[in-house]
Amino acid sequence: MTPDILITNAYILPEPGRAEAIVHGYIAVYNGRIDSIGPIEELPGRAAVEVIDARGGVVMPGLVNTHCHAAMTLFRGLADDLELVSWLNDHIFPAEAAHVTPEMVYLCSKLAAAEMVLSGTTFVADGYFFEDEAARAFSETGLRAVAAQGIIDFPAPGVPDPKEGVNSIARFLDDWKRRDPLITPAVFAHSPYTCSAKTLREAKELARLHEVPFFIHVAEGPQEHSMIQDIQGDTPVRHLDALGVLDERTVCVHCVWVDEEDIAILARRNAKVSICPQSHMKLASGMAPLADMLDKGVVVGLGTDSAASNNGLDLFREMDICAKVQKVRAMDPVAVQASNVLQMATSSGAEVLGFPEVGSLREGGIADLILIDIDQPHLQPFYGPDLLVYAAGGADVRTVIINGAFVVQDRQVLNVDLEETMAGVRKLAKSLR
Amino acid sequence: MTPDILITNAYILPEPGRAEAIVHGYIAVYNGRIDSIGPIEELPGRAAVEVIDARGGVVMPGLVNTHCHAAMTLFRGLADDLELVSWLNDHIFPAEAAHVTPEMVYLCSKLAAAEMVLSGTTFVADGYFFEDEAARAFSETGLRAVAAQGIIDFPAPGVPDPKEGVNSIARFLDDWKRRDPLITPAVFAHSPYTCSAKTLREAKELARLHEVPFFIHVAEGPQEHSMIQDIQGDTPVRHLDALGVLDERTVCVHCVWVDEEDIAILARRNAKVSICPQSHMKLASGMAPLADMLDKGVVVGLGTDSAASNNGLDLFREMDICAKVQKVRAMDPVAVQASNVLQMATSSGAEVLGFPEVGSLREGGIADLILIDIDQPHLQPFYGPDLLVYAAGGADVRTVIINGAFVVQDRQVLNVDLEETMAGVRKLAKSLR
Repeated sequence: MTPDILITNAYILPEPGRAEAIVHGYIAVYNGRIDSIGPIEELPGRAAVEVIDARGGVVMPGLVNTHCHAAMTLFRGLADDLELVSWLNDHIFPAEAAHVTPEMVYLCSKLAAAEMVLSGTTFVADGYFFEDEAARAFSETGLRAVAAQGIIDFPAPGVPDPKEGVNSIARFLDDWKRRDPLITPAVFAHSPYTCSAKTLREAKELARLHEVPFFIHVAEGPQEHSMIQDIQGDTPVRHLDALGVLDERTVCVHCVWVDEEDIAILARRNAKVSICPQSHMKLASGMAPLADMLDKGVVVGLGTDSAASNNGLDLFREMDICAKVQKVRAMDPVAVQASNVLQMATSSGAEVLGFPEVGSLREGGIADLILIDIDQPHLQPFYGPDLLVYAAGGADVRTVIINGAFVVQDRQVLNVDLEETMAGVRKLAKSLR
Repeated sequence: MTPDILITNAYILPEPGRAEAIVHGYIAVYNGRIDSIGPIEELPGRAAVEVIDARGGVVMPGLVNTHCHAAMTLFRGLADDLELVSWLNDHIFPAEAAHVTPEMVYLCSKLAAAEMVLSGTTFVADGYFFEDEAARAFSETGLRAVAAQGIIDFPAPGVPDPKEGVNSIARFLDDWKRRDPLITPAVFAHSPYTCSAKTLREAKELARLHEVPFFIHVAEGPQEHSMIQDIQGDTPVRHLDALGVLDERTVCVHCVWVDEEDIAILARRNAKVSICPQSHMKLASGMAPLADMLDKGVVVGLGTDSAASNNGLDLFREMDICAKVQKVRAMDPVAVQASNVLQMATSSGAEVLGFPEVGSLREGGIADLILIDIDQPHLQPFYGPDLLVYAAGGADVRTVIINGAFVVQDRQVLNVDLEETMAGVRKLAKSLR
C-alpha cells in the first residue's frame, strides 16, 4: 500500500523525554496511523500520496494540553494584574454571566482551537458550559479533545437550575459518545468549594457509568485551602478522597496546595494531575510541588488553563516556564528537567487523559504529530531536544497532523476560516467594553 | 520634506507602560528621527518614500536588552539542567577556552544579532572577549549596541596576560569611539569574585575617562554572596560601593542577592540594574527583589543573558516570565505588572544604558521602532498593551526600524546572510561535540 503521508529527512523524537532521537529518520502515515518509522536508510519506498521533506526539522508527537477553558479566549487580557478575588468577582464572573452564550462558546472555542493547533497542540482537555458548542468547534477544526461539560452548585450558563446539572451532563455524554472519534465527552465538576458532596458523588458516578474522565479544580490557591480546611476539616485532596471520587480516571487540576500526605493519596489512587504553571504564577496561586509528585509516581500533565489567566495557549511556553520555575522553586537547577516537561506535554499528558494511544510515535500508533522548523536563528545550533523546551515557541510549528490528517500545513490552519472567526470574536469583545 | 517612512493605521504605544496608546495613529520617519507622530486624523500628508499600512498592528519603541553575551549562541543548549558549578567548570569554561576565537565571536554574535532583531530588540548591551568582533557583527546588522570588552584577573580569550586587560580595553574604546554612531564601546568587569579591587578601580577609571558605561555581574547567586561575604566581610554590592565604582554609569547585572541596604545604596548612587529572570530561574540563582528595587527608585532594565543560560534572546518572553515570576515570588498578582515590564524593556532599559534618546517614540526622537502583527489567533481579542507581555512573542514582530532604517522587513532580516551565518555556526558547533 502507498502511505498517505511520508515525511523524510526528519529529526524524530518518538518518545520525547524518554527515548533517543532518530537523528535522520522518516515516518509514514496510512489510514490515520503510523505505518512505519525509522532511520532514513530503512525507508522501504519513497512514494506516498504526499511527501514532505522535513529538511532536518523536528518531528515529534503533538502536544497534549490537559487543562483549558477554550471559550475564555474572549476574556484574554480583559483583566490582568489583579487580586484573585477581584479578578473573579469584578471581572470574569460578571463577564461570563453577561456574555456566555452557545454562539460565544462555539466562536471563541474555534479561535482557541486555531491557536492551539497553530502552536502544536493536537489534543486538548477542555471544560466549560455549553460544552456541546466547544466540542463542535474542536470537531470542525480536526483537534482531538476531551470535552467536559461543567457542573457547579450555582446557576450557570445553559443550566439555570443547578439541580439540572447532572441531567445536563448525562445528555451531553449521550450526545457525544459516538459522534466523532476525535471527541471524548467527559465531566467537569468545578471544585470542592463550589460543588457539594452530593454533586461531586453524583457527577463522578455518572463519569464512571460512561467510562469517561472526571475533572475537578483542586488545591489551586491559599484561599481554597483555608476554606476547605475550615468547612471540611481537611485538605481539599483528602476531602475528595473521603468522598470516594479519586480514581485513575479522575484528573485533579492545579494541585498547587498539596502536602506529602495528599501526594501519597494521589499516587495510591492513581489519580491524574494537571498543572498550569503560568496561570499559577500570574494569579499568584503558588508553585506546585511537581518534583515531589513525579518522584512519588503521580502522572502529571501540563495545562495552559484559559487565555484569561495565562494569556496564551502555547504549550512550548508552558514547558519552558514550568521547568524554569520549578528550578527556582527548589533552588536547584537539576530539579525538573527539559526531559521531564517534554514527557509531561506528550506521553504523560495522554496518560492523564486516559488516551495512551497518542503522545508517542510508534508503528501502529495513532498519527498525531507535528513538524518543527529549526532552521531559524533562535534554534541554531541544535544540540538536542532540550532546545525545544528552552528556546522554541508555538510559532516554530510548521505542520500539524491529527489522526493522520493535515490540520496545519506550512502554518496555515486548514479547517478554520480565521478571518471570519477573529472578526466574530472581535465583535463580541467590542460588546464587552 | 517627504518622510522616508510613513506608517499608518497603527495602534501606537509611544511610551510603553507609561502613556496611553494612540489607538489609530501614524508615525513619520525622516533622516533617522521621528518627524511626526499622532492620531491618523492629524496626519499632514500621505506621501512618503515608503508607506506601510500597519493594518491595526502595534507600533512601539524597539526593545532594549540590557545584558547579553551574544557570541555564546554557540553554546545554546550545549549543557542544560546542570548544577551551576558543573555547568561552568565542566562545560562552559572549557568550551570557551577551546572555541572562543575572533571568527567565532564575529559569526556567533551575528547569529545573535539576527535573532534579536527578528524578535524586536533594537538595542543591546553586550559583553564578551574579542568584543571588537561582536561590535563589527552588530554594526553590520544595523543593531544599536553598547559593546563592552571584558576584563578578568585570569588569562582570557584574546588577553592571555591579565595585566594587559586594562590596556586591551583602552585600545578597544579608542577604536570604536567614533566608528559607527550605532555602536558605543564600553567596559565589562566580570565580577567582584574574579576581579581584584585594583582591576575594578582601574577599569572603572577608564570608563569614567571615556564617559562610557561600566558593567559588572554582581550578586547573582548564593555562592558568590557567601564568597564575597567571607573574603570582603560584606555583601557584593557594599564591597563595590566601598571601592567607589558605583555611579550613574555603572550597570549592576543580576542583583538577585541584594538586601534592603544594598538597594538603598544602588538608589543613592543612581547605579543602574539589569535583571535576567529566565537565566536566574534556569540556573536556580533566585528571584531578584524587583518590586523593592522599583519602589526605591532604582532604574532596572531587562536582560536575556546569554543563549547558554536562557536559551533564547527574545525579550517578549523575558517580559512575560519576569512579571509572572515576580507575582509568585511575592504571592501577590499585583506585585509587578505588565506596565512595569513594558517600561523596563523600553525606556528604563534605554536609561540603564545611558541612552534616553531611544526607548520611547516622540517627535524629534531617534527612530528605533517595531511593528507587531496582532491579527493572529493568539493575539485576539486585543483589549490593550498588557497582551504584548502575556501573549506575544518575538515571532509576532513583522518589521524593525533602527535609526530610521529598515533592519527587518516582513520578517526578513535585511543585512545578514542567514543561511551562511547559520551554516557557519553549525560547523563550529560540530567541532564542539
